[in-house]
Amino acid sequence: MDSAVIPVSKLREFLIELFKEVGLNNSHAGIVADSILCAELRGVKSHGLVRVSTYIERVEKKATNINAKIKTEKIKKATALINADHGFGQIAGFYGMKLAITLAKKYGVGLVGIKNSNHFGIASFYSMLALKHDMIGIVLTNSSPAIAPYGSSKPLLGTNPLSIAIPSKEEKPIILDMSTSVVARGKIRLAKLKNQKIPFGWALDSSGRDTDDPDLALKGSLVPIGGPKGSGLSLVIDILCGVLTNTCLTGEVKNVTDMTGPSKTGHLFCAVNIADFIEKNVFKSNIDEIIRKIKSLPSINNLQIFLPGEIENNLEEKSLREGINLDSNLIDELSRLASRYKIKNLI
Amino acid sequence: MDSAVIPVSKLREFLIELFKEVGLNNSHAGIVADSILCAELRGVKSHGLVRVSTYIERVEKKATNINAKIKTEKIKKATALINADHGFGQIAGFYGMKLAITLAKKYGVGLVGIKNSNHFGIASFYSMLALKHDMIGIVLTNSSPAIAPYGSSKPLLGTNPLSIAIPSKEEKPIILDMSTSVVARGKIRLAKLKNQKIPFGWALDSSGRDTDDPDLALKGSLVPIGGPKGSGLSLVIDILCGVLTNTCLTGEVKNVTDMTGPSKTGHLFCAVNIADFIEKNVFKSNIDEIIRKIKSLPSINNLQIFLPGEIENNLEEKSLREGINLDSNLIDELSRLASRYKIKNLI
Repeated sequence: MDSAVIPVSKLREFLIELFKEVGLNNSHAGIVADSILCAELRGVKSHGLVRVSTYIERVEKKATNINAKIKTEKIKKATALINADHGFGQIAGFYGMKLAITLAKKYGVGLVGIKNSNHFGIASFYSMLALKHDMIGIVLTNSSPAIAPYGSSKPLLGTNPLSIAIPSKEEKPIILDMSTSVVARGKIRLAKLKNQKIPFGWALDSSGRDTDDPDLALKGSLVPIGGPKGSGLSLVIDILCGVLTNTCLTGEVKNVTDMTGPSKTGHLFCAVNIADFIEKNVFKSNIDEIIRKIKSLPSINNLQIFLPGEIENNLEEKSLREGINLDSNLIDELSRLASRYKIKNLI
Repeated sequence: MDSAVIPVSKLREFLIELFKEVGLNNSHAGIVADSILCAELRGVKSHGLVRVSTYIERVEKKATNINAKIKTEKIKKATALINADHGFGQIAGFYGMKLAITLAKKYGVGLVGIKNSNHFGIASFYSMLALKHDMIGIVLTNSSPAIAPYGSSKPLLGTNPLSIAIPSKEEKPIILDMSTSVVARGKIRLAKLKNQKIPFGWALDSSGRDTDDPDLALKGSLVPIGGPKGSGLSLVIDILCGVLTNTCLTGEVKNVTDMTGPSKTGHLFCAVNIADFIEKNVFKSNIDEIIRKIKSLPSINNLQIFLPGEIENNLEEKSLREGINLDSNLIDELSRLASRYKIKNLI
């Protein structure tokens, strides 16, 4: 099978059928499908369809609880703590952000922690849910050890991404979605596959020395952005997601590929209702003006200046129009899953 | 006059007398004094006593409104928007964080925006106010243009610091207080004074080229941490502080030394009540355990590993015990202010 371009609607149907056969109800299968497609559409392929087989393997090996019942453990007016019951992070995450939005409508701000969750895919899937309510969405998650606390050589902190989505009027919204490491580990794996060196400044070897060797880097740790700053930011995100939610301590999150048990992932969702601070149309026009101001600044080497999320917004538009290109390996992988779960193949 | 070590209580009395003569009431003068001393004690001298003459000059030139009346413009249960009336940022900031704490007690989280404010000094002065209430304190502020949006050569974004304070039990609290640039502009000024080159990666010249020349760097822009990541983080902090509070658009904040009018500074304060998520003693013991875990990790070159704020916490303890060392220039500057405002000199 060669690579093929598949319409998004077809992929969505396929994913929903697949996750229903795996054991989710229709609505939950839709959420997981939408999260995966959100990553795929926005060009964040590391959190897209390549994860499907891992997510399903987790269910098969009971690392992810397919029968999870999401429970509200605490609610205190504008805040809530939700127990994801070790189910899909996407389902708990969607529920958490929706609840944050509901709370923000009533209280001006809503803050929802999720405990006992799993990998939830692309963070901006959740922060962007706030946009159509004219709210700012803020999302944090912990993740498995990858970064060494500044001054140490042992990875303990996750890349712990944060996403902030800000609505605009005529321009496309500003969508920050960043990890606290200089690069993702995936970029180092790619360099290794291609037998290439990596730039200094990306990773440390297991003794904490800067390295350009992808092999040594993968046995070592990722460099945080801004040294002690990124390391500190990663630590506080870890505490807000893991400790505040009573899920785990720093360093205890398992990688999504570790099937030995619950991954001990925690998330934090916040929605801020803009109209409780400033007239929402004034806010959104002001964001448009800022976007235009930044786009028209003098650029380095006459290259285009991009706002946070702009490249991804453009890719999403294009993929919605033209479909998503899947390489042959991925098509084969999805075909095997289709056979195993006895659903109609993609192609 | 040589340098001298002054007890903190004496400095505090001096500052309160001085700011009272400048026109603040006793309680407001105390807040400004405490904020300045907080920076001084924690070794963040750039936000300490060296700022006193600038703060006073701002009042004299009516850039800071000494008669400011802080007004609540909007309140929606867990959120509020406060108008600082172009007065001291420290007073509005203190009020804002206190209000966020009050709201968090009732609603679980409190979020307070401050508009029309001024330079508020060291961000962690405010975030740390949450600690004794067993809350997490989060503080953001915008600042004058210093960083070029990623891909551009023109500074538009501030260094836009963020501070997050997290309470502990027996260990000292974790206090993140960081800007979004690799280094502060002050470090480049210092290199220039010493006729030294700066490392590549700190700053860009006015064409956006990486430079090791402090002169060119000061005419150019600061490099954000992690390239597009720090640039994006700075932009969203700017929007949360400037646009959400209806104070100004990105790029419009005036430097504290610009006496031509209001500085258009905005801040955002958030308090999170830990007990609404997890039993507070469990949380604080867990933070202790994380601190000990990180301190005992293998370190690079056998150097000590420091938690965010640890160096500053240690300095604060030492200065409280031993007093603060002021150099002769600073003593002279404070003496001139004492004469001008007819208060008893420091020495």
